[in-house]
Amino acid sequence: MKLLEERIRKDGIIGEGDVLKIGSFLNQQIDVGLVSEMGREFHRLFGDAGVTKILTVEASGIAIACLTAPYFGVPVVFAKKSKTSNIAGNVLCAECFSYTHNCVNNLIVPAEFLSADDKVLIIDDFLANGSAVRALCDLAHQAGAEVVGAGIAVEKAYQAGGKELRGQGLRIESLARIASMSVGKGITFCR
Amino acid sequence: MKLLEERIRKDGIIGEGDVLKIGSFLNQQIDVGLVSEMGREFHRLFGDAGVTKILTVEASGIAIACLTAPYFGVPVVFAKKSKTSNIAGNVLCAECFSYTHNCVNNLIVPAEFLSADDKVLIIDDFLANGSAVRALCDLAHQAGAEVVGAGIAVEKAYQAGGKELRGQGLRIESLARIASMSVGKGITFCR
Repeated sequence: MKLLEERIRKDGIIGEGDVLKIGSFLNQQIDVGLVSEMGREFHRLFGDAGVTKILTVEASGIAIACLTAPYFGVPVVFAKKSKTSNIAGNVLCAECFSYTHNCVNNLIVPAEFLSADDKVLIIDDFLANGSAVRALCDLAHQAGAEVVGAGIAVEKAYQAGGKELRGQGLRIESLARIASMSVGKGITFCR
Repeated sequence: MKLLEERIRKDGIIGEGDVLKIGSFLNQQIDVGLVSEMGREFHRLFGDAGVTKILTVEASGIAIACLTAPYFGVPVVFAKKSKTSNIAGNVLCAECFSYTHNCVNNLIVPAEFLSADDKVLIIDDFLANGSAVRALCDLAHQAGAEVVGAGIAVEKAYQAGGKELRGQGLRIESLARIASMSVGKGITFCR
């Protein structure tokens, strides 16, 4: 998606350690006009998939999911992150390793919010090694739901997650796919 | 706002310890149609206030803020919660006591996302003792920004926060104001 790629070139900040900071328009500060256009694009891509629910993970996925869901007319459910494995109540839970924070999070959704009738579209801001998308798929499958695909804002295509998950049959649509990225040379997008 | 009051009556769950669970439509699962109507109402109330930025706090405020901001055509900024007081970089930071989790959180926003030119509308899901709204005001004031008011989904009007903050001159508009609430007797809204 040209609009997003241009914005990443303009306002994305490449940091040491393979970090791309998009906090000024897609994360902690959110350009709702841009994100709403991204939602429109996700709907163009997945609009005929029969989506009944959009699933994401706090905190950075919520904005994208909430500005996508109105095009589909379906609710958003977000998984909460918890470091404790002492989870109470009737919940779905899947482990997710965070490379950013070098820790394991449990992603948790109350069982009542996903059912075997659901067709789930996963939405997230980044896809790199794929651990978050894998955990969200796991949550949906625990409920017996079908995952129709994953809509991602920014994919680091040089990392293994996208290839592995597509190899397992998951449909992934990423609006910006980064082929390479470095502090000196800037960003190259996949063509 | 009648639509929200009716939904709280229908799907809100009153728990022990003054807890109102609205997780099935306003928090962990989000009815984006309802929340978008709430955003329209916030715009009706604050549309002439010259708002340049909407400020909220993760995670439950993000959905409401993001579905309100398109009516105003302004960005959303959300404060992150951190338990550590060891905050790095050029950030604004304010303490906020969480009665739900019985702990102090630091609310943190990168300094670049709020400026002295900003007219800030605070958005949050609950107002009870007022600690989150107070901390968000503090963050805005640290940046030299003006707070034009706070738009709240659900106010527990029998708690002190709303009265105190209005007494200090803050304009607060709450879409549902609970006069009393108990497991046995249900919910009464302010009239």
